[in-house]
Amino acid sequence: MNKEYYIIGWHPITEALETGKEFQRIFLLQGSRGEKQTEVLKFAKEREIPIQFVPQQKLDRITRKNHQGVIAVVSPIEFADVDNLIASLYEQGETPKLMALDGVTDVRNFGAICRSAECLGFHGILIPSSGMAPINEDAVKSSSGALLRLPVCRISDMGKTLKSIQQQGLQLAGMTEKATQELSELSIKGPLCIVMGNEETGLTETSLRTCDYLVRIPMKGRVASLNVSVSAAIAMYALGTSSVKM
Amino acid sequence: MNKEYYIIGWHPITEALETGKEFQRIFLLQGSRGEKQTEVLKFAKEREIPIQFVPQQKLDRITRKNHQGVIAVVSPIEFADVDNLIASLYEQGETPKLMALDGVTDVRNFGAICRSAECLGFHGILIPSSGMAPINEDAVKSSSGALLRLPVCRISDMGKTLKSIQQQGLQLAGMTEKATQELSELSIKGPLCIVMGNEETGLTETSLRTCDYLVRIPMKGRVASLNVSVSAAIAMYALGTSSVKM
Repeated sequence: MNKEYYIIGWHPITEALETGKEFQRIFLLQGSRGEKQTEVLKFAKEREIPIQFVPQQKLDRITRKNHQGVIAVVSPIEFADVDNLIASLYEQGETPKLMALDGVTDVRNFGAICRSAECLGFHGILIPSSGMAPINEDAVKSSSGALLRLPVCRISDMGKTLKSIQQQGLQLAGMTEKATQELSELSIKGPLCIVMGNEETGLTETSLRTCDYLVRIPMKGRVASLNVSVSAAIAMYALGTSSVKM
Repeated sequence: MNKEYYIIGWHPITEALETGKEFQRIFLLQGSRGEKQTEVLKFAKEREIPIQFVPQQKLDRITRKNHQGVIAVVSPIEFADVDNLIASLYEQGETPKLMALDGVTDVRNFGAICRSAECLGFHGILIPSSGMAPINEDAVKSSSGALLRLPVCRISDMGKTLKSIQQQGLQLAGMTEKATQELSELSIKGPLCIVMGNEETGLTETSLRTCDYLVRIPMKGRVASLNVSVSAAIAMYALGTSSVKM
């Protein structure tokens, strides 16, 4: 069982949200309504915090205290805003290099990708605000602590954000087995965002359409495919190194 | 607890050895001697099967049956002879590409490296016959089954074997943070063996002296280093791709 830290009840949660406390997610009782809930939902939307409506039993299992139908899971890391991140990289004279994970679901893979990204000089990770591996103590451990240093941006609409960062000058390279171009044939100069898809289903249709380049790592064996964290590391090494050589 | 399969007692073990059955290791009772033991030791030496002398309690914990002071742990995979492997690759007109693990101790890292090696078209893995991650069901699972397809060679003297395969035409590239040359600056044409060291201590002195090239992946972050299975995959991708392009 992972260690998780909770804040319980409307008042403490609203207060924590006001002071900028980071949450992994907020559990709300199914069917609950009211002014306090509207306020929490508004905060959550602004800050891209995932909301999950759950039955009474789920909340009761987390705590025996009077939770009032709302429990927030504290996040071990702080999240960054992608536009601010890119702007500050440009200001510092850096060539932004980001990694977008469009649906990596395994906590260990997520942690491993963060570790590699930090080591290979990438500046941040984009993750969807739902359907994603939870960012818990396990993820921080798998990342060998990199998650505490590497900016992570939660994105509610990945397709929209990919288009937006494209307009901010980042070239999008999607990794997919469906690509005809090989990774080794691609060299990207300048700002870069690598896009990795889900372990099983790969890149979403939107990502496939939005990327400037689609590349694949040629598979030479009979085992289906590389682990997603290994593919991600190879892509960051191959494209990150060429983009630095500009 | 891993599922492990055992063969128990002198006669069954000698018989299994004669028919070519593969063992992970053989446990012998500390201080035991005799003709049967000499025979088993001779077989084990020929076949590079690790022998471990253990106290009575260790054997009694494995089985309640009459073990006669000898228990063999069955290997889930078969092992290959490195000289035969290289010879058969040359015969098939292949450019041998091997990966030597000089002391990777973690089972998951070992499995992950095997998976990447198989996917990236490497032909075999060299592992030391002692001080190595056990090749058990966990390793097979971590390798996503690649361990059942990829030839694994057990090496009793890694330094000697590295020199021997060098004489068979393989160029040795050792991965070490101590190197001055960067991986991206190295391109190897022709037969290749990448050498990876232990997770903590890196390459042994002998490996450092024997390798034709020593290269490093530049670390740009503040987290200490890449995971060994990630470094191995990047090296196989970078050097394997260039060696194919000969």
